[in-house]
Amino acid sequence: MATLKKKILDKVKNDLADIEAALKDKLNPHFGLVDKIARHIIFPGGKRIRPLLMILSARLCSYKGSSDKTFSTVFELLHTATLLHDDLVDGASTRRGKPVANLIWGNSAAVLVGDFLLARSLTITAETGMLKLIKIIAKITEEMSLGELLQLQSKGIVDLSEEVYMNIIWSKTAALFQGACSAGAIIANASDEKVEALATYGENLGLAFQMADDLLDYTSSSEILGKKTGADLREGKLTIPVIYAYKTADSKEKEMIKNIILNKNFSDDDFKRLLQVLKKNKSIEYTEKQALKHVLKAQKALLLFKDSETRKILIDIADFAMARKA
Amino acid sequence: MATLKKKILDKVKNDLADIEAALKDKLNPHFGLVDKIARHIIFPGGKRIRPLLMILSARLCSYKGSSDKTFSTVFELLHTATLLHDDLVDGASTRRGKPVANLIWGNSAAVLVGDFLLARSLTITAETGMLKLIKIIAKITEEMSLGELLQLQSKGIVDLSEEVYMNIIWSKTAALFQGACSAGAIIANASDEKVEALATYGENLGLAFQMADDLLDYTSSSEILGKKTGADLREGKLTIPVIYAYKTADSKEKEMIKNIILNKNFSDDDFKRLLQVLKKNKSIEYTEKQALKHVLKAQKALLLFKDSETRKILIDIADFAMARKA
Repeated sequence: MATLKKKILDKVKNDLADIEAALKDKLNPHFGLVDKIARHIIFPGGKRIRPLLMILSARLCSYKGSSDKTFSTVFELLHTATLLHDDLVDGASTRRGKPVANLIWGNSAAVLVGDFLLARSLTITAETGMLKLIKIIAKITEEMSLGELLQLQSKGIVDLSEEVYMNIIWSKTAALFQGACSAGAIIANASDEKVEALATYGENLGLAFQMADDLLDYTSSSEILGKKTGADLREGKLTIPVIYAYKTADSKEKEMIKNIILNKNFSDDDFKRLLQVLKKNKSIEYTEKQALKHVLKAQKALLLFKDSETRKILIDIADFAMARKA
Repeated sequence: MATLKKKILDKVKNDLADIEAALKDKLNPHFGLVDKIARHIIFPGGKRIRPLLMILSARLCSYKGSSDKTFSTVFELLHTATLLHDDLVDGASTRRGKPVANLIWGNSAAVLVGDFLLARSLTITAETGMLKLIKIIAKITEEMSLGELLQLQSKGIVDLSEEVYMNIIWSKTAALFQGACSAGAIIANASDEKVEALATYGENLGLAFQMADDLLDYTSSSEILGKKTGADLREGKLTIPVIYAYKTADSKEKEMIKNIILNKNFSDDDFKRLLQVLKKNKSIEYTEKQALKHVLKAQKALLLFKDSETRKILIDIADFAMARKA
């Protein structure tokens, strides 16, 4: 699958370079702390998938203007703002292989720089002068905070339902993906039908992306992830592989899973035993199957558009969402 | 001065009741934690000065519509969002005589509910469909986070300049007051001249209000304030009374003030000795004089409008900003 990643990156490298330049320009840091924290969290190693989706969606709708790169930064800044706040909420220790910002600069600075990035993404949106976009961004911001709150309140609930899990990942991830894609169509003045199709693509891509991400926490290695596997569970976060395993477990396995969930300092051996149940109950396959459904829905929505280089890239990105290793 | 407060409250009691109703309606809490925290921090004892200023400013500009009450909630929600984050940033323990939200529900919930309130105020603003208002609110949100960051970075700086202090209070307080008043004029479709006059009124009222607030930390009593006097200094926050005292102190006094600032756990006796220096150096008088300048500037800006009941209330509010005891 390294070839798929390389294939995509080759085709979008100019776009990615433009996004980097726009991000640097739009951050325009007023003083030290914003600059330091922003560089720490934004510049090393972000995938830029959200701004890229916006730019590609606009291009798919034959966008001819020049403000797509600038506006695309909104989706990276919003995402970064939530990362800063989430790392604090989750009590995480590392992200992308580096210590989280709140452990270096303190909770206060992480909260305030997050607030600044959120506010900055709103001023950039307001500058477009497009009410429709402004309403979308405001709504997404609200949705994301509600998703994080629901996730916080769901921590440690052993028999969390798949339905609540889907609500959480819809709010915290899919809403922003959906917004990025539909915003791309909107700045291109596309028809409602096209806006709707790209919204469907983005929403389902976001769901698949988050499910794949949650799966990696059980299937990847700490070295590749840049954080310890099982980190979600250590933070009390139940995701689809464990939710399914618990639902399908016999009473002895249920007891074992419950004990691991309730004991956040579980040992590596405990985690290995959990992985065995996940394997036995086919939780990994189940998660992959669910994620794949959303990948296919995403790709199907693109059938509205005629074949093009851009459509191909969007199809590849959906395949890659599931194939990625980190 | 209790009479001035009563006089104002008598005249605006219907407006305050409308603001309460609009706040309850607009919060529309999706689930438990938002509801609990919002009730804890929003409903007991807020002064509602910001939404009230917006409503009165609109009325002064002959506003005839019916969306002023709904839109006014934006200014209370934005203010509340920053309170939630600031209490965490400041490490405060009480607000309005009650434990701060982050001590009851944890930092995570306080951060996320703050994010939600911020986002909600933006969706309410977007619903007005007025680009000018949206740009103002986005800009204020950015400004406030920068003010808080500047304040965070200025903590414990013994010889902080009055200029930096003024920048901080402009961003963290005056920008929102200014926004509330100019937004009132804008929804009333007032002339640029009137918008400008109300912006000047709001800005200067905000500066005076914050200076008076900072003064209370040295002149009020813990019982009236609902928090310990000297709390700002214990959090490392230098405000105008101490900044002026340090600037005008002799070398022995400078050393004493410095020791108190650097030792956040200073004793009540230390604080008494500091108050003596503030008295000797006429810091209280100096602060009052500076605040009064802004009260007068605020009131002068209202001369553009012909005399009316509403103008009288706004003049009284400016007088009250300095006269209040808590």
